[in-house]
Amino acid sequence: MKISQTVALFTVVLAVALDASAQTGNQKAADAIRKADQQWMAAYAAKDVDKSAAFMAPDGAMYAPNAPAVQGLEAVKSMAAEMFKLPDVKLTWTPTLVEAAKSGEIGFSSGTYAFSFKDPSGKTIDDKGKYVTVWKKQADGTWKVVRDIFNSDMPPPSMH
Amino acid sequence: MKISQTVALFTVVLAVALDASAQTGNQKAADAIRKADQQWMAAYAAKDVDKSAAFMAPDGAMYAPNAPAVQGLEAVKSMAAEMFKLPDVKLTWTPTLVEAAKSGEIGFSSGTYAFSFKDPSGKTIDDKGKYVTVWKKQADGTWKVVRDIFNSDMPPPSMH
Repeated sequence: MKISQTVALFTVVLAVALDASAQTGNQKAADAIRKADQQWMAAYAAKDVDKSAAFMAPDGAMYAPNAPAVQGLEAVKSMAAEMFKLPDVKLTWTPTLVEAAKSGEIGFSSGTYAFSFKDPSGKTIDDKGKYVTVWKKQADGTWKVVRDIFNSDMPPPSMH
Repeated sequence: MKISQTVALFTVVLAVALDASAQTGNQKAADAIRKADQQWMAAYAAKDVDKSAAFMAPDGAMYAPNAPAVQGLEAVKSMAAEMFKLPDVKLTWTPTLVEAAKSGEIGFSSGTYAFSFKDPSGKTIDDKGKYVTVWKKQADGTWKVVRDIFNSDMPPPSMH
């Protein structure tokens, strides 16, 4: 191995090591949050009101755009039930950044979403945007949502 | 003191104790986040582009409604500069829930905002909504914004 190759390899190894050290927080907890984030999405995909609402912490709130904050289990259930009624409704999201504190009981997931449904005229409405979800580990070890907030990347309807 | 009074006092003491024990996380860190949250607001009130952008973590992103995510110092500065140009622009926010992890390096602030400006016709546009900001303690001890996201409580403009 030439010296230049050794230096190049060393540089790569150092870069990887630095990148790993830049990973602050608790990876195990972050993995658990990522898993909860995707299980929550599965509950929405299954249009399961109870399962989707079960991911909310007792004092959790959902901040949907162009509507007041929704807090409390019954209010969250109503919102989900309304959404699930939309024709051909589809909601998926992709966490792009998930982190948890070193102490492993608070963290967040953040990423992009895609949302679509058919309006009364049968036209497909496509929306995409971004979200932040704050998670807190509960006494029973499950991760639940303290705050969930999202908004659209697209101009308001009047500007379409 | 009658027995009924003693019982009542005991109940109050117990309720306060339970409430305190329900306060999870790191109160000192939460206080620091609340302070940073309000200092950030002061930088916006002063229409100080550099100071307001200085609250962003190096990889921090702002998720404003009806626009793509804004990431990176220059992009955040541009967004602030555009906002500060709006006639009579006023932005205030009130954190209603601030928490930090026990380990004291990750936390969030969440609450309500009020935003107003004059449109080209001179009419005041009033908006109010809610926000979630994820904060991370930096190597130098300062708290900076990893993710900031907000949306309006009001119906979209086309529905006003």
